[in-house]
Amino acid sequence: MKFSFKNDYSEGCHPNILQALVQYNLEQQAGYGEDQYSLQAKKLIKERIKKTNSEVYLVSGGTQANLIVISSILRPYQCVISAAPGHILNNETGAIEATGHKVLSIDTEDGKLRPSDILPVLENHSNIPHQVMPKLVYISNSTELGTVYLADELQELSDFCREKNLYLFMDGARLGHGLTSEISDLTLEKVAELTDVFYLGGTKNGALIGEAIVINNPELQPDFAFNIKQKGALLAKGRLLGIQFMELMKNDLYFDLARHANNQAMKIKNALKEKGAQFLSDTYTNQIFPIISHEMIDILSEGFEFYVWKKIDEQSSAIRLITSWNTGDEAVERFIEIIKKEFQ
Amino acid sequence: MKFSFKNDYSEGCHPNILQALVQYNLEQQAGYGEDQYSLQAKKLIKERIKKTNSEVYLVSGGTQANLIVISSILRPYQCVISAAPGHILNNETGAIEATGHKVLSIDTEDGKLRPSDILPVLENHSNIPHQVMPKLVYISNSTELGTVYLADELQELSDFCREKNLYLFMDGARLGHGLTSEISDLTLEKVAELTDVFYLGGTKNGALIGEAIVINNPELQPDFAFNIKQKGALLAKGRLLGIQFMELMKNDLYFDLARHANNQAMKIKNALKEKGAQFLSDTYTNQIFPIISHEMIDILSEGFEFYVWKKIDEQSSAIRLITSWNTGDEAVERFIEIIKKEFQ
Amino acid sequence: MKFSFKNDYSEGCHPNILQALVQYNLEQQAGYGEDQYSLQAKKLIKERIKKTNSEVYLVSGGTQANLIVISSILRPYQCVISAAPGHILNNETGAIEATGHKVLSIDTEDGKLRPSDILPVLENHSNIPHQVMPKLVYISNSTELGTVYLADELQELSDFCREKNLYLFMDGARLGHGLTSEISDLTLEKVAELTDVFYLGGTKNGALIGEAIVINNPELQPDFAFNIKQKGALLAKGRLLGIQFMELMKNDLYFDLARHANNQAMKIKNALKEKGAQFLSDTYTNQIFPIISHEMIDILSEGFEFYVWKKIDEQSSAIRLITSWNTGDEAVERFIEIIKKEFQ
Amino acid sequence: MKFSFKNDYSEGCHPNILQALVQYNLEQQAGYGEDQYSLQAKKLIKERIKKTNSEVYLVSGGTQANLIVISSILRPYQCVISAAPGHILNNETGAIEATGHKVLSIDTEDGKLRPSDILPVLENHSNIPHQVMPKLVYISNSTELGTVYLADELQELSDFCREKNLYLFMDGARLGHGLTSEISDLTLEKVAELTDVFYLGGTKNGALIGEAIVINNPELQPDFAFNIKQKGALLAKGRLLGIQFMELMKNDLYFDLARHANNQAMKIKNALKEKGAQFLSDTYTNQIFPIISHEMIDILSEGFEFYVWKKIDEQSSAIRLITSWNTGDEAVERFIEIIKKEFQ
Repeated sequence: MKFSFKNDYSEGCHPNILQALVQYNLEQQAGYGEDQYSLQAKKLIKERIKKTNSEVYLVSGGTQANLIVISSILRPYQCVISAAPGHILNNETGAIEATGHKVLSIDTEDGKLRPSDILPVLENHSNIPHQVMPKLVYISNSTELGTVYLADELQELSDFCREKNLYLFMDGARLGHGLTSEISDLTLEKVAELTDVFYLGGTKNGALIGEAIVINNPELQPDFAFNIKQKGALLAKGRLLGIQFMELMKNDLYFDLARHANNQAMKIKNALKEKGAQFLSDTYTNQIFPIISHEMIDILSEGFEFYVWKKIDEQSSAIRLITSWNTGDEAVERFIEIIKKEFQ
Repeated sequence: MKFSFKNDYSEGCHPNILQALVQYNLEQQAGYGEDQYSLQAKKLIKERIKKTNSEVYLVSGGTQANLIVISSILRPYQCVISAAPGHILNNETGAIEATGHKVLSIDTEDGKLRPSDILPVLENHSNIPHQVMPKLVYISNSTELGTVYLADELQELSDFCREKNLYLFMDGARLGHGLTSEISDLTLEKVAELTDVFYLGGTKNGALIGEAIVINNPELQPDFAFNIKQKGALLAKGRLLGIQFMELMKNDLYFDLARHANNQAMKIKNALKEKGAQFLSDTYTNQIFPIISHEMIDILSEGFEFYVWKKIDEQSSAIRLITSWNTGDEAVERFIEIIKKEFQ
Repeated sequence: MKFSFKNDYSEGCHPNILQALVQYNLEQQAGYGEDQYSLQAKKLIKERIKKTNSEVYLVSGGTQANLIVISSILRPYQCVISAAPGHILNNETGAIEATGHKVLSIDTEDGKLRPSDILPVLENHSNIPHQVMPKLVYISNSTELGTVYLADELQELSDFCREKNLYLFMDGARLGHGLTSEISDLTLEKVAELTDVFYLGGTKNGALIGEAIVINNPELQPDFAFNIKQKGALLAKGRLLGIQFMELMKNDLYFDLARHANNQAMKIKNALKEKGAQFLSDTYTNQIFPIISHEMIDILSEGFEFYVWKKIDEQSSAIRLITSWNTGDEAVERFIEIIKKEFQ
Repeated sequence: MKFSFKNDYSEGCHPNILQALVQYNLEQQAGYGEDQYSLQAKKLIKERIKKTNSEVYLVSGGTQANLIVISSILRPYQCVISAAPGHILNNETGAIEATGHKVLSIDTEDGKLRPSDILPVLENHSNIPHQVMPKLVYISNSTELGTVYLADELQELSDFCREKNLYLFMDGARLGHGLTSEISDLTLEKVAELTDVFYLGGTKNGALIGEAIVINNPELQPDFAFNIKQKGALLAKGRLLGIQFMELMKNDLYFDLARHANNQAMKIKNALKEKGAQFLSDTYTNQIFPIISHEMIDILSEGFEFYVWKKIDEQSSAIRLITSWNTGDEAVERFIEIIKKEFQ
């Protein structure tokens, strides 16, 4: 069996979660998210972000979170602004458009958005009422390219959005990885302070399923549950989501898992850097994009699975390696060993 | 702690499922439903219905299944026909309309639809193009009122739909209960033969989440996965659904669990009948609707939770009792004991 | 050529409109409703309703007005309440549902809604968040059955809606006919005061096309034009709508035309009543529904076109006769003559 | 009064149309497009394109035509491909997305699409089912930049679409101008042969309102009228559209009007070229984009209205001049005179 670096959702879930699922399995609980575990999970999240006025909702996956949040916020003629690599633009089968809203794409080098990226879009959408009205800025942290927002960058973006009357929504499918990156000076509390809505991704960080949507802006809270139900995202056995986030929030397990994934990626990155490898982008999270020769790809492919991401030239391509909460030392060491031996 | 007869999703899942989740937890698998367990689950379902040309898709819940199936089938101007108690009409926050389609409601005594119910609706929608075009008949088995379709009834309805160029879609959130009802002569193979699409509900029959959508009509199969993804229903860890249905399909566990739930309900029903109780409707599945005095409701409420369903007169109301795959003998016997002692 | 009583849109438009179209034809004007004629028409309407804070928008037809108004007001999980004969329920091919919103149907005798009709619907929609949230009450005046709202009735309904936090929207496709009915004590000013939104229908009252949407509730005004454009309803040559309403508003032509239509219908109604005819409903606008024998229908059909509306028994049916701004005395007199001679 | 070159919808309509509106005004006709004039207009169009199997539908405007055609063709997960300047991308307030469909934007120099532009988009959308499925190619002729498709170009594009199983839809808001361009070798018959759907724009070519949608592909014809009604585009007095297209189709008036507009633009273009002016793009229809100095803009603005389209440098900008069916010789000559005198 080859070890897979293809993504961070190849395995099941952290053992603590399974143990809790077993432990509480036969307790009768109210349905639809009114169970004790969901209530406890929400409490823990609100304590962790130090915002008791935020509201927390648990849903199954990232596309679901994105489409529910965005469609619940926007009026029919309003649209989203996203960096070009944004998940909602490329990997969700037009889920946002299916709720009626355009997503404007902005080319950026590193998958991040800055006020200077957004301003021209606002200026180009001034032909009222012949154009959609930009109203929500969608960002991901870590981004789809593995990069992260620094505290100053998010502060600046948040200030800009408030000034321009735009909502700021952070896709946190890999928020744990973003915040525990060695170069990140951003905290979860700060994310809660600077965004209108964000979510804590569970699926890619040790849960079976689950994203915890946190609505910080009180304007956006009323009636939110209706949207969850209408989009088919309200689980009868909400306990499944509640138990998972209850466990992930205990003793910051959520962040320990993400940090572990990042560390494993950094080990590989460093080994590659020592050999002089170049990278498609300079990332410090659990996604790395080294550029390697096609011979090297063949050699690594004998023992590992990963995506060839982008052809660079006739001799080499960038590959994508993703580590996870469960990527063990053995696989990493084996991979590094090959690098050390074969890379040139 | 009071024992709850409020619904069939108060507990977690059948232990076999938890055990399998533990067993396979750290196996790396492909994402998005391409894992071995999902493939195996689909194979087992197709074998069980004896239709190798059907296609199976696993999603999380009933509202999700309903909205994906219906929106994938209909053209923008087409609509659904449903019995008035239909789940899509009353309990899904307008999920179908949110995908753009009207649901026409037909009053029926017992929650079932017959050709004679549908024909007048077709006749009343002949003002082309000023009215929606009825195109899909939505039924539930067992129904929201706990009743079941007999083989002849489904045959007749299916023939009618094919004659009238209507699709027939069966909501099977409680299909196990419907088919294992003591009065049912309908088989799963027959359901697959007579419907264009149906689903096997897991959530209300021993799974944590999960409904298995079965598309029998080949016209409706192409590109179906796009709809699942677009509506946010394609789990990255599809294994969670695959493992559950793999276990439920083994040795007909699915039907054993449903039969158990039905049996427990029938025990209570019979005890009530012996005492001369009346019922809102004469059901043979895991939902019963006895009419009892308000004093009796108070007495039963000391030890049990259940919904008071409908006020009948000043003295009495119908209550709804739902049993599940996990309703133990102890609770049933305790309930029956009180009935025997106190009912009048 | 038979004279048609089938509807009130069989002819073109009032000659004043054609004359103005000719007169202003070659004047260059700004597009998209910024032309002088549209501005003037809006000004005249606001003066006529004595509400300078209302906003007026001109669109082409009733279905268009209904879908734009309703979809602009509601959040995705909110729905409309309508009387069962409501145009949006029966004659618009699911246009409202196509924008994502359910329309709840209420059976009423006369096509009108009263607080006592609506209250039970609100009570039956309290299972949050599993059901749609009723948020907008849709009424027509005159109704689809030709009946009208009296001032007290509208006041009571408006008070109820404000108390229950519901918006009140009046479809005014035949508002002229409603307000000029001999039994109406309602004024246009009062309509503007008691509704959140209403429209003045032009198509059925002497215009070629055109409905003037009036938004009285300031909460509902911002950004409304975006919705018009998005739904394809913003005419490049808005002048076509502007000129028509400018002419209709001059010297109350709009109401004169409606009154004429009503009067012609009343002449026929009275002739029928003198002969002892029964009516499906007792209307005082330009729609009448006399019940006549099938022999009589055959006789009348030799000279006139009209819809046979509803079979009453083996001998007789209700027919629908609609008069218009252009129904001349000759046709009416000829019809009455036959009634006088042949009716029994 | 300044003469306006801002657009081709500043005036009313061609006098023949007004005359016919007057002539037929009081004829009673069936509603909703079943009038004699609409039937006649459709017949004339089908004869003109020599395709008796095509179906013709008349609607009010371009955005309306675009959204109805596109939403009627696509399944929920399918999307449109458009050149970046496409009207549906920039000037319709997200009307297509509001019906649930993404529009992919392709950068092109001249506003036209070629197979080589489209192929990479298809290749980048192969991650099934995680991405929208491209299914319809949207082009305009003349384009939003005033350029035109030559016969070979359209043939090649049409062949490519058929090979790739894509529908080809031509926005013909300015189809008259495109086909009568001095450099065009494309005929209306050829357009009908090579596209699945196209429309003949009336609004920008001498009608008050109206676009004639022609569906050539028989697969796309069934039930189309339902879509028109549902989107609020079925006029009760369809005669208004019928009379206009009946007149425009008589003796090829439609093409004479477009040719006139083109000719007037070419006169100005040639005068500018003689003075050595550059153009933003080399157009041969009724839209020209000369680059002129800001001093010259000031001088021309004293007598004329036009849009300053794009700043080129500190000294000069491109302006957009649009001529119409009604642009008289006097205005053109006056404009040219100033050019001759002042341009440098």
